[in-house]
Amino acid sequence: MDVTVVGSVALDTVETPSGRIQDALGGAATFFALAASNYVPVHMVAVVGEDFPEEHLNLMKRRPINLEGLQRARGRTFRWSGRYHQDLNVRDTLDTQLNVFEHFHPELPPAARSAKYLFLGNIHPALQLEVFEQTGATFVGLDTMNIWIEGAPDTLKEVLRRVNAIIINDAELRQLTGEHNLIKGARQLQKLGPSIVVLKKGEHGCLLFAGHEVFSAPAYPMPEVVDPTGAGDSFAGGFMGYLAGHDMTDTATLRQAVIHGSVLASFTCERFGTERLAEIGPQDIAARYQAFRDLATF
Amino acid sequence: MDVTVVGSVALDTVETPSGRIQDALGGAATFFALAASNYVPVHMVAVVGEDFPEEHLNLMKRRPINLEGLQRARGRTFRWSGRYHQDLNVRDTLDTQLNVFEHFHPELPPAARSAKYLFLGNIHPALQLEVFEQTGATFVGLDTMNIWIEGAPDTLKEVLRRVNAIIINDAELRQLTGEHNLIKGARQLQKLGPSIVVLKKGEHGCLLFAGHEVFSAPAYPMPEVVDPTGAGDSFAGGFMGYLAGHDMTDTATLRQAVIHGSVLASFTCERFGTERLAEIGPQDIAARYQAFRDLATF
Repeated sequence: MDVTVVGSVALDTVETPSGRIQDALGGAATFFALAASNYVPVHMVAVVGEDFPEEHLNLMKRRPINLEGLQRARGRTFRWSGRYHQDLNVRDTLDTQLNVFEHFHPELPPAARSAKYLFLGNIHPALQLEVFEQTGATFVGLDTMNIWIEGAPDTLKEVLRRVNAIIINDAELRQLTGEHNLIKGARQLQKLGPSIVVLKKGEHGCLLFAGHEVFSAPAYPMPEVVDPTGAGDSFAGGFMGYLAGHDMTDTATLRQAVIHGSVLASFTCERFGTERLAEIGPQDIAARYQAFRDLATF
Repeated sequence: MDVTVVGSVALDTVETPSGRIQDALGGAATFFALAASNYVPVHMVAVVGEDFPEEHLNLMKRRPINLEGLQRARGRTFRWSGRYHQDLNVRDTLDTQLNVFEHFHPELPPAARSAKYLFLGNIHPALQLEVFEQTGATFVGLDTMNIWIEGAPDTLKEVLRRVNAIIINDAELRQLTGEHNLIKGARQLQKLGPSIVVLKKGEHGCLLFAGHEVFSAPAYPMPEVVDPTGAGDSFAGGFMGYLAGHDMTDTATLRQAVIHGSVLASFTCERFGTERLAEIGPQDIAARYQAFRDLATF
């Protein structure tokens, strides 16, 4: 089964304790598509500007990523610049230039509309709502972030009512529910709509809440994280890609999908930007999946 | 195989968002002994004052806890008082009265000396060193805390060289090694002596480093933590007790021991002080062990 992703494509300038990259391929939809395309064809719905390098398009075209829904608008591509602290959980945004992203409205071509699995990347909830009018998807995953939780809570709640799964981090969950205890918070969030809550805890792994079940997935032990940018989007891509590839969303498959998400996220962190993610294949994924098994087995 | 624990016995006054207890049975050696006595006979080496209630002694005597090494000194029992925040990871110490604990020197009776498994609870590293002169133990576990890491680093390093395992939390590991990345920090700590590092991460579970192996154990999902006091000591008791019970320290047994530690810690958090820990039995432990398996299986 195919998966459609709606989100951002960006040029990222990132500084971490390990080094720096400038105007590198980035954006939530990019990381998602690269990760998910290991499992299924991906339809990408996003926008880039006139300055977007052809090599980045070629990189995606070499994979089963359908770029029909990638709009090319007048102006410059969305740019983000950030600096990570020694503690890589903390980052400062140095600069955000929305550029062509400012007037973006998602338009799904026929193939993207017919995909059974849809992921709404982190964009304004009002834009996420627009996608519902254009899709026949039966399984919808959602990402969001602090600025929408704070700035558009009512629209976000309307979106929440219509999705099957949300992927969220601990700080966002606390902000959204006002509940410090993560277990209670996840249960509250389920009541707002999504029966599946995937709670990302960075270096502490993640928790899956599916109906009444809870699953705890470990994080891959990394002595060095080079660049965590895109790890969350890679996770979402691995998670949704795996579900779409099996066309199943029972709890056993969901657990495996969470591990696949964690696998893809761990690769992304090993190098800057999409460098590592763009080069891995099925054997790398299988080997790391086994490493997760070794890590969690008792 | 028996296990010996050296540490504190205290009367705790604790306030959490769930309520308050006054002068309740507490102390590292207490929680450890109650937990470990589910698996093996425990020899407790500690000190109490003249005011120590007989009922607390009786509670311990009903279990295979040998109190020969429990000194009764002139004066009042060690008292600790603390208040937990809404975020139960944060607590303020309101009052510490060392009382008879101030002049405590561990003295191991013959049975305690001959135990093959020894746990050095969180006391001054100089006192921990004194225990080495009195023991024939071949497997030694260690706990410590921020005040010794800061106040007696050289003595602590001498202790570290002589132990097999250390149980430490993330903040202490960072303080002791100066390394923010927990994986790197654990590897550094192994080089200081203990080949086994058990890294406690509270609500995020724990990591076991044993030689080159890493094992990630989940935390039990608790919608309500009533009182986390003694959770770490209960963990240590479950961990050491399980190892002593099987008289094995291979990595498979170590992984199971970490889960048993987590099981005992989770029970402790369910009620104030030792209330819950004192009432559980083999069936409770087996059921929760299975819950951990369900939580981690994929």
